[in-house]
Parts: sequence; structure tokens; C-alpha cells
Amino acid sequence: MPAYATNMRLKFPILALTFEIITIVLFAVFVDYDDGKGHGHGHGQGLPNDTHHEKQPMELYPMFQDVHVMIFIGFGFLMTFLKRYGFSSVGVNLLLAAFGLQWGLLMQGIWHLDDGKIKIDIFKIINADFSTATVLISFGAVLGKTSPVQLLIMTILEITLFSVNEHLVANSLKANDVGASMIIHAFGAYFGLAVARVLYRPGLRNGHENDGSVYHSDMFAMIGTVFLWMFWPSFNSAIADPGYTQLTAVINTYLSLAACVLSAYAISSLVEHKGKLDMVHIQNATLAGGVAVGTCADMNIGPFGAMLIGFIAGIISTLGFKFLSPILASSLGIQDTCGVHNLHGMPGILGGLAGIVAVALGKKDGSAAMQAAALASSLGFALVGGVVTGLIMKLPIWGQPPDQNCFDDSIYWEVPEEEEENEESLAHADHSKNKAEA
Amino acid sequence: MPAYATNMRLKFPILALTFEIITIVLFAVFVDYDDGKGHGHGHGQGLPNDTHHEKQPMELYPMFQDVHVMIFIGFGFLMTFLKRYGFSSVGVNLLLAAFGLQWGLLMQGIWHLDDGKIKIDIFKIINADFSTATVLISFGAVLGKTSPVQLLIMTILEITLFSVNEHLVANSLKANDVGASMIIHAFGAYFGLAVARVLYRPGLRNGHENDGSVYHSDMFAMIGTVFLWMFWPSFNSAIADPGYTQLTAVINTYLSLAACVLSAYAISSLVEHKGKLDMVHIQNATLAGGVAVGTCADMNIGPFGAMLIGFIAGIISTLGFKFLSPILASSLGIQDTCGVHNLHGMPGILGGLAGIVAVALGKKDGSAAMQAAALASSLGFALVGGVVTGLIMKLPIWGQPPDQNCFDDSIYWEVPEEEEENEESLAHADHSKNKAEA
Amino acid sequence: MPAYATNMRLKFPILALTFEIITIVLFAVFVDYDDGKGHGHGHGQGLPNDTHHEKQPMELYPMFQDVHVMIFIGFGFLMTFLKRYGFSSVGVNLLLAAFGLQWGLLMQGIWHLDDGKIKIDIFKIINADFSTATVLISFGAVLGKTSPVQLLIMTILEITLFSVNEHLVANSLKANDVGASMIIHAFGAYFGLAVARVLYRPGLRNGHENDGSVYHSDMFAMIGTVFLWMFWPSFNSAIADPGYTQLTAVINTYLSLAACVLSAYAISSLVEHKGKLDMVHIQNATLAGGVAVGTCADMNIGPFGAMLIGFIAGIISTLGFKFLSPILASSLGIQDTCGVHNLHGMPGILGGLAGIVAVALGKKDGSAAMQAAALASSLGFALVGGVVTGLIMKLPIWGQPPDQNCFDDSIYWEVPEEEEENEESLAHADHSKNKAEA
Repeated sequence: MPAYATNMRLKFPILALTFEIITIVLFAVFVDYDDGKGHGHGHGQGLPNDTHHEKQPMELYPMFQDVHVMIFIGFGFLMTFLKRYGFSSVGVNLLLAAFGLQWGLLMQGIWHLDDGKIKIDIFKIINADFSTATVLISFGAVLGKTSPVQLLIMTILEITLFSVNEHLVANSLKANDVGASMIIHAFGAYFGLAVARVLYRPGLRNGHENDGSVYHSDMFAMIGTVFLWMFWPSFNSAIADPGYTQLTAVINTYLSLAACVLSAYAISSLVEHKGKLDMVHIQNATLAGGVAVGTCADMNIGPFGAMLIGFIAGIISTLGFKFLSPILASSLGIQDTCGVHNLHGMPGILGGLAGIVAVALGKKDGSAAMQAAALASSLGFALVGGVVTGLIMKLPIWGQPPDQNCFDDSIYWEVPEEEEENEESLAHADHSKNKAEA
Repeated sequence: MPAYATNMRLKFPILALTFEIITIVLFAVFVDYDDGKGHGHGHGQGLPNDTHHEKQPMELYPMFQDVHVMIFIGFGFLMTFLKRYGFSSVGVNLLLAAFGLQWGLLMQGIWHLDDGKIKIDIFKIINADFSTATVLISFGAVLGKTSPVQLLIMTILEITLFSVNEHLVANSLKANDVGASMIIHAFGAYFGLAVARVLYRPGLRNGHENDGSVYHSDMFAMIGTVFLWMFWPSFNSAIADPGYTQLTAVINTYLSLAACVLSAYAISSLVEHKGKLDMVHIQNATLAGGVAVGTCADMNIGPFGAMLIGFIAGIISTLGFKFLSPILASSLGIQDTCGVHNLHGMPGILGGLAGIVAVALGKKDGSAAMQAAALASSLGFALVGGVVTGLIMKLPIWGQPPDQNCFDDSIYWEVPEEEEENEESLAHADHSKNKAEA
Repeated sequence: MPAYATNMRLKFPILALTFEIITIVLFAVFVDYDDGKGHGHGHGQGLPNDTHHEKQPMELYPMFQDVHVMIFIGFGFLMTFLKRYGFSSVGVNLLLAAFGLQWGLLMQGIWHLDDGKIKIDIFKIINADFSTATVLISFGAVLGKTSPVQLLIMTILEITLFSVNEHLVANSLKANDVGASMIIHAFGAYFGLAVARVLYRPGLRNGHENDGSVYHSDMFAMIGTVFLWMFWPSFNSAIADPGYTQLTAVINTYLSLAACVLSAYAISSLVEHKGKLDMVHIQNATLAGGVAVGTCADMNIGPFGAMLIGFIAGIISTLGFKFLSPILASSLGIQDTCGVHNLHGMPGILGGLAGIVAVALGKKDGSAAMQAAALASSLGFALVGGVVTGLIMKLPIWGQPPDQNCFDDSIYWEVPEEEEENEESLAHADHSKNKAEA
């Protein structure tokens, strides 16, 4: 692949401006503010325990802001662990999420028109933020190996498919998935893994010198981890029925995550050299409890039930990083940069399975068969959609980086001066170097 | 300028303690808690759609905390992009904001006495935080070239003038500016630019080796950017009328910012070398949509109207960084360290103009002429106030740093040991250096 | 001490898994969701000004999230100032808090059973988070000198004792301590100092090369400082009586912290070389106002009263770092890594004393004698409990690091590759080094 193909000067601005202008036109035609006078498809309406709950337009706003922080700080900084890819991680995360939330508002809203309009309220912008999470999860699988142009294309396709599957799961199957273990986490992970498979790079089979962390990049990543960890109860409860159901979702998530930390740390120490802890596990597997309890979060599974789910998720996730990821890369050609299979994929499936069991046990109204169908639908849409999207992204015109420039900001970003002089040195190469060489 | 003049040992403690003790005395005389029994000047009172809205003392608290994060994390970390000026950026930001909010409570409260007292409630502390934003914007223009003593003096003067202009705009002109495009952003920017002009340093005409970023300092700055970006809907809606008006302000800001990201990224890539993205643009111009939609945020401009404003703001701001800032520095002697003209100045004026148009089109009750007068008043107070303040700050007794020590924490801060040994090396100069030399 | 003793491979996983499994079993037996039907021991019930306050299950959720951020980001990042100990600071903070909140729920809940069950609501998870703060404060005193195994043991013991003392203070003595100056801050500090005394290391008398910061680690620590500073009003008001009492707690804390910043900066400049500011003071002493106003936060002490408390706390804390900590280390054998005596110990006692005076002056119903007894009880439990806990932690089987490996992540963590090659170089040692040597 010739180097000039990665020059984004025309293709990126044209694509970004075109996408945005089309979106603004669609908003002009289809979108309006919620003014409280519509017929509504909002949450909690018509529920027996909610008859006295008058709609307060700003009631969910603090929940929204927590989710917002997870999307932009949480996902963005979690991916900054790579030594030379921080600008792209947090910067492209912002780009994709900012476009994705607009597209998500359209794609999700189209199923719920009110007098021919999508009427935006806090509930809808929470869901718009949610829709971007699928893309950010998939982004983790292909991190460092794709151009911003490719990723914008992935964003528009993935959110479109997500919205179809979500509608199917929620409205046709009437399945429970309040914290989106299936429709966001498993969907986003397997979509991304399918894309990664299609974009397989044999040249990276033996690793890449920039595909790793340095001390400070691991610290930046912990900002992402901790904000995701803290606000996950909001993620899993934001669109739950108001009142005690929402409280249940908060408590289950809070406890699942706490138990997950203990098992992730314990297993990390157990499997690593001399019992040491591994930052990759701590940054990721501690969050698996939030993913896995998602489907059941608003169900009456008992506090200890939530803790059990989190405890198991932490074990599975850590073992996945240690033993499964290397096999996926070497045997199946799935190079999963952030290990999303371990954080979102397997724990997402665990969440879906837990939901089937919980509904079968009567922890919430519903049909175990429909829960199973929802899981199958999410995986099916993800795998098929991911393969098709991957094939489109593989077209040589989108400026995909050559192997040697993977995991390196400098191909798409101006990086501070000292780097330009010495492309092979670390980002924080210092003056001493020049001195030593002089 | 002799080096000893920068020793703050007596002048800084004396000034800081004096300011604080005077402030405490004024609080003892004039300030009390809101106890819900006053006659009130609170928000939303007497509005037709608000007759049933009983005052809940803690209702705005989550909004307040979002604004609080913007002031202390957002502004503080946004300015940490300089390679050797992080302590000052986040540390002096904390100092100025902590003093400024106390002074702002007094200066704003003086216009709204209740039985001879300023009665503090959440609404008032949100406004106190707001008043500090003007100073933090101006701080960005003179970052790296001023002493903490000078900046404390700027704080007290700027907040005093801000409060007069704010009172004029809100109470005399009765102009709309819910998100403060005019009274905070344009005011703070042009005030700071006027100060920067007065403090012009010919010695920095050809740049300064520390007036730039390194990889990690750009990452820290992104923490500021993203927190500002996420919580800007709270900034623009915190003091809006409760209910659907507040919701409108949230939605307009959310969408304006999202559209702004796309145009800022596109234009950054378009104007940079080989289509690469520039961190300066990403850190700043992505926020211009929040500034520019401020005045109109609570108006019925339509979701697509908000997106258009953000889209244009992202373009103007990025082009300003690329083409206008160098001209301002070289031709007008305005050395604007953070480019506040591009983030707050031009987008603030754009916001004021959009407000004039929106009011003229009947998107909200008001007078287009009064909107225009509010913009003119804000710019006038800023420019005249900034020049006078700059002249006071220029007095040689305030410990302004000599040119060669600009943009360097070590003149006002103890920096970790390794730096003291090698003043010219980078902050993170490592042991290898000493080794290599040995 | 032989090096192999620090290998955690078996002892850490076994301990962590055992603790977690026991906890899950206890939750299965004793814990359930609050469903709103219990008899309740919640806040504000039965208060005269609260008769119309119907319980909203999610009302305190935004407050909870602020406290949550303080525990996991605030405490976690505040301790990352050490140059090579960031993984442990933020990572072990997460581990201890995640386990501690589960244990705290049990230990605190045991006093308030409802039909034989601990019924979890937001109020209880706020208190669970609070209980972990004691451990995190003590962790600061022994930071860098203890193993994760030792710290897990400290967690379970300290939270158990905290819960007994808290019950005594709140229910038997009926003392006021809404912001927990006594029962969390003073308790946590003196507990940790007692542990540090028992674990005294003569070998560190002359310092340790890793017991200090580098530029970037100081920047990470400021993330912790600023989040603690911003959300402290939530810490002090979260469990206050709803309404205007809660508002008072917010305002007092907001103002105390603002005044504290000015005095901390002023004294830092006054006592340091050439009037420079010291990051250790800025990172810590600016928070002393939040600690010291804790006990009085919900009392009618007047805004200026709160400011006076903060002003004094900033002075005491800064002077403590400068003059008292070195004496404690050299004369009493108390090696207090983070200086918790200056941030939590002395300001906590100041808060307790201010509470005695305020109650004596009738600022809130209560007995000054009971306030004094509460302070004495907290200090007594802390010192005795800390000594006993320290003796248990001193057992040689827990993998305590030898002196030369103190303050170094690499003994318990896998650190990125370049470090393994050159154990003595800094974490961010770069490729240039290898080059220079080659």
C-alpha cells in the first residue's frame, strides 16, 4: 500500500462535512424538541407502579451526564493505554461519538415518530449516547489499524444496524436488556471482531513495537477505567422504570462491579509471573461485572445474585485476556487490540445467558425464549453486519495505514515537534537525546 | 527586569491573605444563607409556565456540580497543554477561581440584597462560578507571561467589571444571554486580549522554546477539553427557566457541540500539512459550538438551527487558529497564548449576533436592539476594562516574569528535583541523561 | 527479609477470593433491596421540618455519584504523586474501596436490621462509600511500604472498628458529625499513623530515591486534588437532613474550601524557598477546609464562620507539611507518606473542636460534652485499633516489601517492558537511552 494513500487532506474533510450536512438537513426535516404535548413513547408509561409519575423534563439529566462521561472520558481514555496512540484514542473517540449520537438520534427516532417528528428529550439523548457505545467498543477491536475515514464509515453503518436490532429486540421480541449486555456490549464486540477478522493483517502476526503501553499511558487509561467503573450503575439504570426498579438496577450494578474487582485482581495475580498484577487486566476485567449484570440489572435477582454474576465475569474476563486472546489472534486471525472480546464479548454473552435464566426463574416478567432470541439476534446482526462493514472498510481508498505505521498517532496527527525529528523515538523523547547524540 | 523581582515571598502572601481577610469581613457583614423566607430574585419566578414550581433548595445542585467541574477541571486542564507550565495552569486556575467565586458572590449579590443581605442559594453559587469563567478565559490569553500576583489583581478587577456589565445587560437592557456568549465568553476573551496587548512582549515575537506542547501535556489538556465539552449543556442551561425551556437549552447545546466537532475536525485536516489533525484545533475549536449557541440556547431555534450555529463556529474557530492568531501576534502585538480569541472571542460574537437574529425572528420575547446593545456593552466593558487592568498589571512591582522565564513553572513553583539540576532540560528529563553524560 | 516473601501468587488470590466469597455468602443471608415497605432508619425521618418529604428512592443518587468520584478518582489519583507508584496508588485504591464498600455495607447495616435484613438504598451505599474513606486515608500514611495482602487485612479490620465507633458516636452519644471530621478524617488519619508507627522502617530514615514526585506524577495527583475539592460539598451534605439544612452544608463547605485555597497558597509561598509554591501543599492543604468544616457543615455557623474555619485549616495544614511532618518522622518514628496527619488528622481535630464550640454556642441542638466524647472516642478507637492492626500487619507472612523495593510498583505489578530491562531508570525511560548506551 503506497504511503500517500494515508493522506486524509481531501477524503476526510469531504466525508466529514458531507455526513454532517446531510445530518443537519435530516434534522431540519424530522427532528423537533419534546414540548411535553406529544403522545410519547417514553419510559415507564402505562406501567402499573407508575401511575402517579408525572413527567419531569429534566429528571433524567444527571443520569444522562453520567452516561455522557462514560462515552467521552470513559471509552476515550480507556483506549489511551497504547504508548503512541493517545491522540487518536481520545480524539477519534470524540469524533465518532459526536457524529454517532446525531446519527443514532435519527436511526432510533425513526421508529418512534410523533406527529411525523422525532421529539428529543433526555431519554432520547441517553439512547443516542448508548448507540455510540457500540461503535466505540468496535473501535477498540481495530484500534491502531484503521483510519478516521474508515471509522466514520463504520460509525454510520454500525449505528444503523444497531438501531434495527434494538428495535427488533425491544419492540418485536419484547426482551429485557435494560443495561444492554446483548444489544450494546455483545453486539459491539462481535461486530468489531468481525471487522477485525476481515481487516486481518498478517504483517502484525509477530506484534508491533508500538502495540504496547508505557507507564504514563497506563495511567491515562486508568482515568477511563475508573470513570467507567464509577458511572456504570447509571449506564445500567438510566432507562429503567423510575423508582424502586431503577434503584434495583443501581444496586445490582454497584455490587456486581465491586465483586468483579476482587475476582479480577485475584485471577490476575494467580496467572501472572510471580503473582504480579497486570495493568491490562485491571484496566478491563474490573469492568466486566458491569457488562455481565446489564440484562438482569433491573430484575429481582438479589444483591448476592448480582455479586455472583460480577464475580464470575471478573474471572472469565481475566482468563480471556491471558489465554484466549493470543489464540484468537494466532489461530483465527482476530487481532483484537483492546481485548474487547474479554471485556464486552464474553461478559455480554454471560449477561444474556443470565437474563434467560433470571426470566425463566420469574425474576422479571418475560419469556426466556424471547431472551434467547434477543441474544441470537444481537450476535447474528453483529457478525453479519461486521463482516459486510469490514469488507466496505477494506476498500483501498479509505486511507488505511500500512503495517509499519499502525499504532502511531503521527500518521494522522501533527505530533509535537521533537517527534518529527526522530520518528522512531518515543513521544516524550527529550532534549537529552539530541545532546547525547551531538 | 531584574530577576529578584519575581520572588513572591512577601508580595504574594500579603496580597492573598489581605484579599481573603477583607472578603471574610465583607461576608460577615453582608452574606447569609438563603432560608427560603426571603422575597427572592430567583430564576423562573413569576413566569407564566412556572406557577406550580415550588422552590426546591437543592434542585439545581447537579447542574452546579457540572459547572463546577468545568471551571476547575475543564479550564484548569485545558491550559496544561504547555510542556512546562502544567503546575501553573491547573494550580493558578484553582487559586483564581477559588478567590473569584467569593468575590463574584459579593459583586453579583450586591445588586440583589434581601433585607440588606446577600442570601446564598444554589442559583447564586452557580453564578459565582460563572463569574470566575471570565477571569479564566482572560488567563488563557496571558498564560505563561504573568505572575500569580498580577493575576489576583486581574481577578478582582475583572469580576467587578463583569458584575456591572452583567447587571446592565440582564436588568437594564433585559437582553437574553442564558449561556453567556456575550457577557462571559466575548467579555472574558476581549478583556484578556486587551490585557495581553498592554503587556505586549517584543522579546517573544519569534516564539519561545517552552511555548509549545509535548505529547503528554497534550493528553492532559484533552481531559480539560472533554470535560468542558460534556458539561457545556449544563453551563448553557443551568440558569434557564425550569422545565421545557431548560430542556431546550440542553438539547441545543448538545447538538451544537456535536456538529461543531465534525466541522472542526474537517477544517483542521483540510488546512494542515498532509491532511493531519492538529491537537490545538481539537482541544479548542470543538468547544466553539458551546460558546456560539450560548445566547440562543433557550430559544426555539430548532435543533437544526443549533447544529448550524455549531457547525459554523467550528469552522470559524479552526480557521482563526490557523490564519488569524499569527496575524494578531505579528501585526497587532496581541500574543494570545491559548488562542482565546478563536475559542471564546469570535464564537462569543457569533453567539451574540445569532441572538440578535433569533430575537428579531421571534424565537424568544425580546428586542433585537437590546440584544445588540448587550453585545456592544460587553465588548466595550471588556476592551476598556482590559486596557485599564493591563496598565495596572504592568506596574513593575507585581513580579512579572522576564521573557526568558515565561512559560516555565519553575519561576513560581518548586519543581521536582531533577529539573533543578538541569533547568534547560524537559520536566521529565530522566536518569539516562545523567548517565549518558557521565 | 527474603525477597521471595513478596511473591503474592498464592497468598493474595487466596485471601481476595476467600474474603469475597465469605462476603457474598453473608449478603445472601443478610442483605436485600430496599423496597420502600420497611420501617426504615433513613435520614430525616421524624424531623419536624420534614413531614411532607415523601421518600424518593433515587433522590440522593447524584450526591452518591459525587461521593463515589471522590473515593475512586479523588483518593486514587491524589496518591499518584509518587514517581513510580501510580499503578499501586490508583489500582490498590480501587481494590480496597471495592472490597471495603461491601464490608462496610455489612458492618454498618448490622446495626439497622429491618425484618432481619439489611435493606440497601442510596443512603446506605453512600455510607458504604464513606466507610472506605477511612481505609483510603490510612492507606495514604503507609503508601509505598505495604503489600496488597497487608492492606486487605487492614481494610477488613479498620472498617469493622469504624462501624463500631460510628454507631457509638451517632446513636449512643448522639453527637453531630455530618461531614465526618471526627469519625472518618481524624479516625482514618490516626489509625493510619498508628499503623505506620508499628511498621516503622529505620532503613528509610534518610529517605528513599523513589519517595518523591516527577513532573507528570504531580499532574496526575492534581486530578485527584481537584475532584476532591469540587465534590467535597457533596461529601459533607450527602447525609444531611433534606432541604435547607442540606443547602447549608453545601454552602459552608463551598466557602470553607474557597477560603482554604487562599491561605494554603499564601503560607506555601511564605515558607518556601524564594516564595515559590510547593505542589505537596497545593495538592493537600487546599482540601483541609473541607475536612475541618465537616462536623459543623450543617450548622448555622454563618458563611463567614465557615470561611474562618477553612482559612485556619489551610494555614495549619501547610505549616504541618513544612514543619511537623519531618519531626514526626525523625523523632516519633511516624513515616507518613502522604502527610495524612496534615490533611486529615489535624484538620479533623480542628473540625471536632469547632463542632464542640458551635454546639456550645447553640448553632445546632446537641451537647458539647457529647461532641467532645465523640472526638475522644474516634481518636481512641483509631489509636488502639491502629496499633493492634499494625501488629497483625507486621506478621512476616503478608509479603511486606523490603526497604529497597518500597515506593516501587514493579514489586507487585507488571510494568511496561522498558523498565524491566533497567530497573533503576525512571518509568518513562526512553529508547534514546538504549541508543546512547549502544
